[in-house]
Amino acid sequence: MTATIDPFHAIAISRLAHRMAAEGRSIIHMEFGQPSTGAPKAAIERAHHVLDTDGLGYWESPALKARIAALYREDYDVGVDPEQIILCCGASPALVLGLSCVFAPGARVAIARPGYVAYRNTLKALHMEPVEIPCGADTRFQVSAAALAALEPAPDGLILASPANPTGTIIPEAELRAIVEVCRARGIRIISDEIYHGLSYGEPAHSVLEFDGEALIVNSFSKYFSMAGWRLGWLVVPPGLIDAARARMGNLFLTPPSLSQHAGLVAMDAHEELEGHIDTYRHNRDLLLAALPGMGLDRIAPPDGAFYIYADIGHLTDDSLAFCTRLLEDTGVATAPGVDFDPVEGHRFMRLSFAVSTDRVEEAIARLSAWFAGQKTLAPM
Amino acid sequence: MTATIDPFHAIAISRLAHRMAAEGRSIIHMEFGQPSTGAPKAAIERAHHVLDTDGLGYWESPALKARIAALYREDYDVGVDPEQIILCCGASPALVLGLSCVFAPGARVAIARPGYVAYRNTLKALHMEPVEIPCGADTRFQVSAAALAALEPAPDGLILASPANPTGTIIPEAELRAIVEVCRARGIRIISDEIYHGLSYGEPAHSVLEFDGEALIVNSFSKYFSMAGWRLGWLVVPPGLIDAARARMGNLFLTPPSLSQHAGLVAMDAHEELEGHIDTYRHNRDLLLAALPGMGLDRIAPPDGAFYIYADIGHLTDDSLAFCTRLLEDTGVATAPGVDFDPVEGHRFMRLSFAVSTDRVEEAIARLSAWFAGQKTLAPM
Repeated sequence: MTATIDPFHAIAISRLAHRMAAEGRSIIHMEFGQPSTGAPKAAIERAHHVLDTDGLGYWESPALKARIAALYREDYDVGVDPEQIILCCGASPALVLGLSCVFAPGARVAIARPGYVAYRNTLKALHMEPVEIPCGADTRFQVSAAALAALEPAPDGLILASPANPTGTIIPEAELRAIVEVCRARGIRIISDEIYHGLSYGEPAHSVLEFDGEALIVNSFSKYFSMAGWRLGWLVVPPGLIDAARARMGNLFLTPPSLSQHAGLVAMDAHEELEGHIDTYRHNRDLLLAALPGMGLDRIAPPDGAFYIYADIGHLTDDSLAFCTRLLEDTGVATAPGVDFDPVEGHRFMRLSFAVSTDRVEEAIARLSAWFAGQKTLAPM
Repeated sequence: MTATIDPFHAIAISRLAHRMAAEGRSIIHMEFGQPSTGAPKAAIERAHHVLDTDGLGYWESPALKARIAALYREDYDVGVDPEQIILCCGASPALVLGLSCVFAPGARVAIARPGYVAYRNTLKALHMEPVEIPCGADTRFQVSAAALAALEPAPDGLILASPANPTGTIIPEAELRAIVEVCRARGIRIISDEIYHGLSYGEPAHSVLEFDGEALIVNSFSKYFSMAGWRLGWLVVPPGLIDAARARMGNLFLTPPSLSQHAGLVAMDAHEELEGHIDTYRHNRDLLLAALPGMGLDRIAPPDGAFYIYADIGHLTDDSLAFCTRLLEDTGVATAPGVDFDPVEGHRFMRLSFAVSTDRVEEAIARLSAWFAGQKTLAPM
């Protein structure tokens, strides 16, 4: 039997938001995790040049693989051979590739709940079994070494995400080391989704590769590098899996977009412009963290990274999809319902993305403040 | 246990060719199936404009889906709802998506042997079972209704390719209808890879969708539209599978490249420029078909479409990879060994792609003629 996959409800919210915009309503898009900024200017310039001088056939950029390998030395002090870098059409297929390299149908793979909806659904589509580890405010919604040690039987794998989606929380270094130790002792293969690396508001996040050379690492140009629609990501595989990963890439996906590889290489050195985006996110985050408690949204884990806030709305609803729909209809602010990230507890959560411009955040705060003030006098939905 | 996937040997040939080029050798690339022309001029102009005016976030183009749906009316007189079009990062992930929508691990899926290497490998990576139907010169290397009817037990699915890779042969309309009838009677789901449609030298190819509304259709912008490195393709699903396919697309792949969608929409109306490429391919094909018999390569099925010639070299070798390697080293002409397409009989075949400029084909013919003349006096390798 083919697998049944849940829809991504934020897409329904987004479609409604676009319909409302077409009808003339003012919409603030906080439902998806994508930068509102474009690619770095130098990357766009490079793309213009390549468009005029290159036939753009199937291609894998050796220079980009080398540059990404160098990033692991610069950012994490880890040596990576360029051949360990498998370039993909974004982080999503990189995860599919990674899962296919190390697990077979029936494999049990642990994931945090709440977590990115595609982990659960991609595992199901590949006929693997997601083993959800319920994570609450006590661990800032993250997997802990203790929870992994207590899991019986031991899962075959673990997908880690730090900073996480939907919470933006980062696993502290000592805990990350402890998780790696538990996985090593129990024979659990780690796939670490590091797509939000580079987007931190305190200490930078550590790569699992610093502690576990057998881990697979997923990353992309969609978040820090602000190139979501360019569809470029990568998978780092240990040396022993290079041939298996390359064979899968060539057969299942062929190559990533050629133009994006040219532009991405240039983007990797556009630090000044990219750090400016982080200043904006930090400011947006501070504005929201200051304003949300006044709306009654005080049960949140302040995000260490990424650009999300996951807020408990359980005092107002037990149906986050209906809640986010009504919030959008009333205010024009589009958000993601918690059920996308947690099918059990998510009915009482919502996620806001603050990867928008600061004036949009300020406008959203004004609209939400008025709306939530009105909700206080109403019965729960 | 994870699946073991064969490497694509043409990639090894190509790497050797690029090393030789770096050492100053003159190389003619006939090993891969990609146009040497770039995207249509109007598409490149559109890309320049979009680069300067659009943030290129995650995006699916409603206009492109509608335009592709219209193509099925124009080219095949079949009605397709735009929602049936799932835009993908090329035909490769479209095939992964299609297989995942209709089959589970263990499913038995019939494919022609010889055939595109990724069919066999992608099925294996998804833990499905490729059921190879040996196809010889008597059916011009294509699956026949009779062969399908005789297959016991009936497979769950069938991947069709017409025009085919590596032979370029097209299944005649009456035979295609008969194949659809056998599949309907035996409950075999068809996935039709129509990536070489538009590239025909006689009658245009028919879409399986004309005869079977439950078939899944794979296609892309890589061949006729000459946009291989833009990584844009599509899957047509029957109405009952739209939700399943959309959910998989969102979770496994997210979206295709945004810039490519903008450019692809324009490319779909660049008929004059694209038909010019076909004139070149037709001329190249005629030159090769006239020259190859004189080299002793007279056991070929003249291609009806695509841009390949699959030639029997059994009088000279029983190791096509070694043969193609030596041919490259001696002449600088890179070709694909038959073992990529047929693990059983492919040791005595080679594939030439003529999607290069005519002066390259002429030079290849000159080099190959001299080389094959020398082989006649040698013992078989």
